[in-house]
Amino acid sequence: MLEAASEVFAERGFHGATVEEICERAGFTRGAFYSNFSSKDDLVVELSRRHSEALVDRIRHASKRAHADADELLRDVFAALADDSRSQERWLVLTTEFTLHAIRDAHARRAWAAQQRRVRDELVAVVDEAVARQGLALPMPTELFVRAAIALAQGSMTQRLIEPRAIGVGQLERTVLPILLGLGG
Amino acid sequence: MLEAASEVFAERGFHGATVEEICERAGFTRGAFYSNFSSKDDLVVELSRRHSEALVDRIRHASKRAHADADELLRDVFAALADDSRSQERWLVLTTEFTLHAIRDAHARRAWAAQQRRVRDELVAVVDEAVARQGLALPMPTELFVRAAIALAQGSMTQRLIEPRAIGVGQLERTVLPILLGLGG
Repeated sequence: MLEAASEVFAERGFHGATVEEICERAGFTRGAFYSNFSSKDDLVVELSRRHSEALVDRIRHASKRAHADADELLRDVFAALADDSRSQERWLVLTTEFTLHAIRDAHARRAWAAQQRRVRDELVAVVDEAVARQGLALPMPTELFVRAAIALAQGSMTQRLIEPRAIGVGQLERTVLPILLGLGG
Repeated sequence: MLEAASEVFAERGFHGATVEEICERAGFTRGAFYSNFSSKDDLVVELSRRHSEALVDRIRHASKRAHADADELLRDVFAALADDSRSQERWLVLTTEFTLHAIRDAHARRAWAAQQRRVRDELVAVVDEAVARQGLALPMPTELFVRAAIALAQGSMTQRLIEPRAIGVGQLERTVLPILLGLGG
Protein backbone atom coordinates (compact mmCIF):
# COMPACT_ATOMS: atom_id res chain seq x y z
CA MET A 1 0.00 0.00 0.00
CA LEU A 2 2.73 2.49 0.97
CA GLU A 3 4.77 1.57 -2.11
CA ALA A 4 1.74 2.10 -4.36
CA ALA A 5 0.92 5.39 -2.63
CA SER A 6 4.49 6.67 -3.21
CA GLU A 7 4.16 5.95 -6.92
CA VAL A 8 0.78 7.63 -7.26
CA PHE A 9 1.97 10.72 -5.32
CA ALA A 10 5.06 10.96 -7.56
CA GLU A 11 2.91 10.81 -10.70
CA ARG A 12 -0.04 12.97 -9.65
CA GLY A 13 1.28 15.15 -6.84
CA PHE A 14 -0.29 15.30 -3.37
CA HIS A 15 -3.43 17.14 -4.45
CA GLY A 16 -3.89 15.17 -7.67
CA ALA A 17 -3.58 11.73 -6.04
CA THR A 18 -6.88 10.25 -4.84
CA VAL A 19 -7.50 7.54 -2.26
CA GLU A 20 -9.34 5.69 -5.08
CA GLU A 21 -6.33 5.59 -7.35
CA ILE A 22 -3.99 4.61 -4.51
CA CYS A 23 -6.30 1.70 -3.58
CA GLU A 24 -6.60 0.63 -7.21
CA ARG A 25 -2.80 0.63 -7.67
CA ALA A 26 -2.29 -1.32 -4.43
CA GLY A 27 -5.14 -3.77 -5.08
CA PHE A 28 -6.90 -2.74 -1.86
CA THR A 29 -10.51 -1.80 -1.19
CA ARG A 30 -11.40 1.61 0.24
CA GLY A 31 -12.48 -0.26 3.37
CA ALA A 32 -8.99 -1.69 3.76
CA PHE A 33 -7.54 1.80 3.29
CA TYR A 34 -9.72 3.38 5.95
CA SER A 35 -9.07 0.58 8.43
CA ASN A 36 -5.36 1.55 8.21
CA PHE A 37 -5.42 5.32 7.69
CA SER A 38 -7.92 7.97 8.70
CA SER A 39 -7.21 10.09 5.58
CA LYS A 40 -4.78 10.85 2.74
CA ASP A 41 -3.01 13.25 5.14
CA ASP A 42 -2.57 10.43 7.63
CA LEU A 43 -1.04 8.26 4.89
CA VAL A 44 1.52 10.96 4.00
CA VAL A 45 2.52 11.38 7.65
CA GLU A 46 3.00 7.60 7.92
CA LEU A 47 5.06 7.56 4.68
CA SER A 48 7.13 10.41 6.07
CA ARG A 49 7.67 8.54 9.35
CA ARG A 50 9.06 5.53 7.47
CA HIS A 51 11.14 7.55 5.04
CA SER A 52 12.66 9.66 7.84
CA GLU A 53 13.37 6.62 9.98
CA ALA A 54 15.34 5.04 7.13
CA LEU A 55 17.23 8.29 6.53
CA VAL A 56 18.07 8.82 10.21
CA ASP A 57 19.20 5.17 10.43
CA ARG A 58 21.60 5.73 7.54
CA ILE A 59 23.01 8.88 9.14
CA ARG A 60 23.33 7.14 12.50
CA HIS A 61 25.01 4.11 10.96
CA ALA A 62 27.51 6.21 8.97
CA SER A 63 28.31 8.42 11.95
CA LYS A 64 29.03 5.42 14.22
CA ARG A 65 31.65 3.79 11.99
CA ALA A 66 35.30 4.15 13.03
CA HIS A 67 36.71 7.41 11.65
CA ALA A 68 40.21 8.89 11.74
CA ASP A 69 38.76 12.36 12.38
CA ALA A 70 35.63 14.47 12.19
CA ASP A 71 36.23 15.39 8.52
CA GLU A 72 36.15 11.72 7.60
CA LEU A 73 32.99 11.18 9.65
CA LEU A 74 31.25 14.04 7.90
CA ARG A 75 32.33 12.81 4.45
CA ASP A 76 30.94 9.40 5.34
CA VAL A 77 27.57 10.86 6.40
CA PHE A 78 27.32 12.95 3.21
CA ALA A 79 28.21 9.91 1.08
CA ALA A 80 25.47 7.88 2.78
CA LEU A 81 22.97 10.64 1.97
CA ALA A 82 24.09 11.20 -1.64
CA ASP A 83 23.56 7.51 -2.37
CA ASP A 84 19.94 7.84 -2.98
CA SER A 85 19.55 11.36 -4.28
CA ARG A 86 16.93 10.61 -6.97
CA SER A 87 14.43 9.07 -4.55
CA GLN A 88 15.15 11.88 -2.08
CA GLU A 89 14.29 14.47 -4.73
CA ARG A 90 10.97 12.70 -5.37
CA TRP A 91 10.41 12.68 -1.65
CA LEU A 92 11.26 16.38 -1.34
CA VAL A 93 8.52 17.25 -3.82
CA LEU A 94 5.85 15.36 -1.83
CA THR A 95 7.17 16.81 1.44
CA THR A 96 7.01 20.33 0.02
CA GLU A 97 3.48 19.83 -1.29
CA PHE A 98 2.38 18.51 2.09
CA THR A 99 4.09 21.43 3.88
CA LEU A 100 2.06 23.89 1.74
CA HIS A 101 -1.09 21.94 2.58
CA ALA A 102 -0.18 21.99 6.28
CA ILE A 103 0.36 25.77 6.22
CA ARG A 104 -3.31 26.11 5.15
CA ASP A 105 -4.83 23.29 7.26
CA ALA A 106 -4.54 23.36 11.07
CA HIS A 107 -5.14 19.62 11.53
CA ALA A 108 -2.44 18.64 9.02
CA ARG A 109 -0.16 21.29 10.53
CA ARG A 110 -0.33 19.75 14.00
CA ALA A 111 0.44 16.27 12.66
CA TRP A 112 3.26 17.63 10.49
CA ALA A 113 4.79 19.67 13.33
CA ALA A 114 4.82 16.56 15.55
CA GLN A 115 6.47 14.53 12.79
CA GLN A 116 9.14 17.20 12.18
CA ARG A 117 9.83 17.31 15.91
CA ARG A 118 10.32 13.52 16.10
CA VAL A 119 12.84 13.54 13.24
CA ARG A 120 14.70 16.51 14.72
CA ASP A 121 14.88 14.89 18.16
CA GLU A 122 16.45 11.77 16.66
CA LEU A 123 18.95 13.81 14.66
CA VAL A 124 19.83 15.88 17.74
CA ALA A 125 20.74 12.65 19.59
CA VAL A 126 22.90 11.45 16.66
CA VAL A 127 24.71 14.82 16.37
CA ASP A 128 25.24 15.14 20.15
CA GLU A 129 26.81 11.70 20.28
CA ALA A 130 29.10 12.29 17.27
CA VAL A 131 30.16 15.75 18.51
CA ALA A 132 31.04 14.35 21.94
CA ARG A 133 32.92 11.38 20.46
CA GLN A 134 34.99 13.64 18.16
CA GLY A 135 35.62 16.24 20.88
CA LEU A 136 33.98 19.02 18.87
CA ALA A 137 31.96 21.96 20.18
CA LEU A 138 28.93 23.33 18.34
CA PRO A 139 28.66 27.15 18.22
CA MET A 140 24.87 26.92 18.71
CA PRO A 141 22.29 24.66 20.38
CA THR A 142 22.21 21.26 18.63
CA GLU A 143 18.58 21.74 17.68
CA LEU A 144 19.43 24.89 15.72
CA PHE A 145 22.33 23.08 14.04
CA VAL A 146 19.94 20.31 12.96
CA ARG A 147 17.36 22.87 11.76
CA ALA A 148 20.07 24.64 9.73
CA ALA A 149 21.30 21.31 8.29
CA ILE A 150 17.75 20.45 7.19
CA ALA A 151 17.25 23.91 5.63
CA LEU A 152 20.56 23.63 3.74
CA ALA A 153 19.88 20.07 2.54
CA GLN A 154 16.37 20.94 1.34
CA GLY A 155 17.65 24.20 -0.19
CA SER A 156 20.43 22.36 -2.08
CA MET A 157 17.95 19.85 -3.45
CA THR A 158 15.33 22.47 -4.40
CA GLN A 159 17.89 24.70 -6.11
CA ARG A 160 19.28 21.67 -7.99
CA LEU A 161 15.82 20.67 -9.21
CA ILE A 162 15.50 24.12 -10.81
CA GLU A 163 19.13 24.47 -11.98
CA PRO A 164 20.62 20.96 -12.18
CA ARG A 165 23.96 22.06 -13.64
CA ALA A 166 24.53 25.08 -11.37
CA ILE A 167 24.87 23.32 -7.99
CA GLY A 168 26.18 19.91 -6.90
CA VAL A 169 24.40 17.22 -4.86
CA GLY A 170 24.43 18.31 -1.22
CA GLN A 171 26.71 21.23 -2.03
CA LEU A 172 25.27 23.70 0.51
CA GLU A 173 25.43 21.37 3.50
CA ARG A 174 28.85 20.04 2.44
CA THR A 175 30.18 23.61 2.29
CA VAL A 176 28.54 25.11 5.37
CA LEU A 177 28.35 22.34 8.01
CA PRO A 178 32.14 21.73 8.28
CA ILE A 179 32.59 25.46 9.00
CA LEU A 180 29.93 25.33 11.74
CA LEU A 181 31.75 22.32 13.22
CA GLY A 182 35.05 24.26 13.24
CA LEU A 183 36.67 21.90 10.74
CA GLY A 184 39.38 23.30 8.45
CA GLY A 185 38.37 23.79 4.83
CA MET B 1 -3.16 44.26 -11.89
CA LEU B 2 -0.12 42.97 -9.96
CA GLU B 3 -1.69 43.99 -6.64
CA ALA B 4 -4.92 42.17 -7.52
CA ALA B 5 -2.99 39.11 -8.69
CA SER B 6 -1.07 38.95 -5.38
CA GLU B 7 -4.35 38.93 -3.47
CA VAL B 8 -5.92 36.22 -5.60
CA PHE B 9 -2.80 34.04 -5.37
CA ALA B 10 -2.75 34.44 -1.58
CA GLU B 11 -6.42 33.39 -1.34
CA ARG B 12 -6.53 30.59 -3.91
CA GLY B 13 -2.94 29.43 -4.28
CA PHE B 14 -1.06 29.34 -7.59
CA HIS B 15 -3.04 26.44 -9.06
CA GLY B 16 -6.41 27.62 -7.75
CA ALA B 17 -6.06 31.20 -9.07
CA THR B 18 -7.43 31.72 -12.58
CA VAL B 19 -6.64 34.45 -15.09
CA GLU B 20 -10.41 35.15 -15.09
CA GLU B 21 -10.54 35.85 -11.36
CA ILE B 22 -7.38 37.97 -11.47
CA CYS B 23 -8.85 40.09 -14.30
CA GLU B 24 -12.16 40.44 -12.46
CA ARG B 25 -10.43 41.57 -9.26
CA ALA B 26 -8.25 44.07 -11.15
CA GLY B 27 -11.10 45.34 -13.35
CA PHE B 28 -9.26 44.31 -16.53
CA THR B 29 -10.41 42.37 -19.57
CA ARG B 30 -8.71 39.14 -20.58
CA GLY B 31 -7.49 41.03 -23.65
CA ALA B 32 -5.71 43.55 -21.43
CA PHE B 33 -4.18 40.68 -19.44
CA TYR B 34 -2.82 38.92 -22.51
CA SER B 35 -1.44 42.12 -23.97
CA ASN B 36 0.74 42.38 -20.83
CA PHE B 37 1.49 38.75 -19.93
CA SER B 38 1.75 35.64 -22.06
CA SER B 39 0.42 33.39 -19.26
CA LYS B 40 -0.23 33.01 -15.53
CA ASP B 41 3.38 31.73 -15.26
CA ASP B 42 4.64 34.90 -16.87
CA LEU B 43 2.67 36.98 -14.38
CA VAL B 44 4.24 35.13 -11.41
CA VAL B 45 7.74 35.63 -12.82
CA GLU B 46 7.00 39.36 -13.21
CA LEU B 47 5.62 39.55 -9.64
CA SER B 48 8.73 37.75 -8.42
CA ARG B 49 10.96 40.19 -10.32
CA ARG B 50 9.32 43.16 -8.58
CA HIS B 51 9.23 41.55 -5.15
CA SER B 52 12.89 40.51 -5.36
CA GLU B 53 13.98 43.92 -6.62
CA ALA B 54 12.35 45.58 -3.60
CA LEU B 55 13.95 43.04 -1.24
CA VAL B 56 17.42 43.40 -2.77
CA ASP B 57 17.05 47.20 -2.61
CA ARG B 58 16.30 46.99 1.10
CA ILE B 59 19.32 44.73 1.71
CA ARG B 60 21.55 47.01 -0.40
CA HIS B 61 20.32 50.13 1.36
CA ALA B 62 20.81 48.65 4.86
CA SER B 63 24.27 47.32 4.01
CA LYS B 64 25.45 50.72 2.67
CA ARG B 65 24.65 52.72 5.80
CA ALA B 66 27.59 53.68 8.04
CA HIS B 67 28.34 50.87 10.51
CA ALA B 68 30.80 50.63 13.39
CA ASP B 69 31.60 47.03 12.44
CA ALA B 70 30.40 44.01 10.47
CA ASP B 71 28.18 42.79 13.33
CA GLU B 72 26.27 46.03 13.25
CA LEU B 73 25.96 45.87 9.46
CA LEU B 74 24.55 42.35 9.64
CA ARG B 75 22.09 43.30 12.41
CA ASP B 76 20.92 46.19 10.24
CA VAL B 77 20.36 43.91 7.23
CA PHE B 78 18.41 41.38 9.33
CA ALA B 79 16.29 44.16 10.84
CA ALA B 80 15.45 45.44 7.35
CA LEU B 81 14.33 41.94 6.37
CA ALA B 82 12.34 41.19 9.54
CA ASP B 83 10.31 44.36 8.98
CA ASP B 84 7.95 42.80 6.62
CA SER B 85 7.85 39.16 7.69
CA ARG B 86 4.10 38.62 7.20
CA SER B 87 4.10 39.65 3.54
CA GLN B 88 7.29 37.65 3.01
CA GLU B 89 5.59 34.54 4.38
CA ARG B 90 2.72 35.03 1.94
CA TRP B 91 5.27 35.47 -0.78
CA LEU B 92 7.18 32.33 0.28
CA VAL B 93 4.02 30.25 -0.18
CA LEU B 94 3.50 31.47 -3.77
CA THR B 95 7.21 31.05 -4.53
CA THR B 96 7.16 27.49 -3.22
CA GLU B 97 4.03 26.63 -5.23
CA PHE B 98 5.64 28.04 -8.35
CA THR B 99 8.88 26.14 -7.67
CA LEU B 100 6.91 22.87 -7.52
CA HIS B 101 5.19 23.81 -10.79
CA ALA B 102 8.58 24.64 -12.36
CA ILE B 103 10.03 21.26 -11.29
CA ARG B 104 7.31 19.60 -13.42
CA ASP B 105 7.19 22.09 -16.34
CA ALA B 106 10.31 22.71 -18.45
CA HIS B 107 9.14 26.08 -19.79
CA ALA B 108 8.38 27.47 -16.32
CA ARG B 109 11.64 25.97 -15.07
CA ARG B 110 13.75 27.90 -17.58
CA ALA B 111 12.02 31.19 -16.71
CA TRP B 112 12.32 30.48 -12.99
CA ALA B 113 16.00 29.51 -13.22
CA ALA B 114 16.74 32.77 -15.07
CA GLN B 115 14.87 34.77 -12.42
CA GLN B 116 16.71 33.02 -9.55
CA ARG B 117 20.01 33.73 -11.30
CA ARG B 118 19.20 37.45 -11.65
CA VAL B 119 18.39 37.79 -7.93
CA ARG B 120 21.50 35.85 -6.94
CA ASP B 121 23.75 37.97 -9.17
CA GLU B 122 22.45 41.15 -7.54
CA LEU B 123 22.93 39.73 -4.04
CA VAL B 124 26.46 38.56 -4.93
CA ALA B 125 27.35 42.15 -5.88
CA VAL B 126 25.89 43.49 -2.59
CA VAL B 127 27.74 40.89 -0.49
CA ASP B 128 31.05 41.36 -2.34
CA GLU B 129 30.92 45.09 -1.76
CA ALA B 130 30.03 44.79 1.94
CA VAL B 131 32.66 42.10 2.55
CA ALA B 132 35.37 44.24 0.89
CA ARG B 133 34.31 47.36 2.80
CA GLN B 134 34.39 45.54 6.16
CA GLY B 135 37.68 43.77 5.37
CA LEU B 136 36.10 40.32 5.80
CA ALA B 137 36.95 37.13 3.90
CA LEU B 138 34.30 34.60 2.92
CA PRO B 139 35.27 30.93 3.39
CA MET B 140 33.50 30.00 0.13
CA PRO B 141 32.65 31.56 -3.25
CA THR B 142 30.17 34.44 -2.79
CA GLU B 143 27.59 32.67 -4.93
CA LEU B 144 27.56 29.69 -2.56
CA PHE B 145 27.27 32.04 0.42
CA VAL B 146 24.24 33.69 -1.21
CA ARG B 147 22.71 30.30 -2.05
CA ALA B 148 23.20 29.19 1.59
CA ALA B 149 21.70 32.45 2.89
CA ILE B 150 18.63 31.95 0.68
CA ALA B 151 18.24 28.32 1.81
CA LEU B 152 18.52 29.34 5.48
CA ALA B 153 16.08 32.25 5.13
CA GLN B 154 13.51 30.12 3.29
CA GLY B 155 14.05 27.23 5.74
CA SER B 156 13.54 29.52 8.76
CA MET B 157 10.32 30.87 7.29
CA THR B 158 8.98 27.45 6.26
CA GLN B 159 9.78 25.90 9.65
CA ARG B 160 8.12 28.87 11.39
CA LEU B 161 4.97 28.51 9.31
CA ILE B 162 4.65 24.93 10.60
CA GLU B 163 5.87 25.58 14.17
CA PRO B 164 5.42 29.31 14.90
CA ARG B 165 6.47 29.10 18.53
CA ALA B 166 9.49 26.83 18.06
CA ILE B 167 11.73 29.10 15.99
CA GLY B 168 12.19 32.89 15.77
CA VAL B 169 11.93 35.17 12.71
CA GLY B 170 15.11 34.73 10.67
CA GLN B 171 16.68 32.60 13.39
CA LEU B 172 18.63 30.24 11.12
CA GLU B 173 20.29 32.95 9.02
CA ARG B 174 20.92 35.12 12.12
CA THR B 175 22.67 32.18 13.80
CA VAL B 176 24.63 30.75 10.87
CA LEU B 177 25.68 33.71 8.68
CA PRO B 178 27.79 35.52 11.33
CA ILE B 179 29.77 32.30 11.82
CA LEU B 180 30.38 32.00 8.06
CA LEU B 181 31.58 35.62 8.08
CA GLY B 182 34.01 34.86 10.92
CA LEU B 183 32.22 37.19 13.35
CA GLY B 184 32.40 36.36 17.08
CA GLY B 185 29.21 34.90 18.56
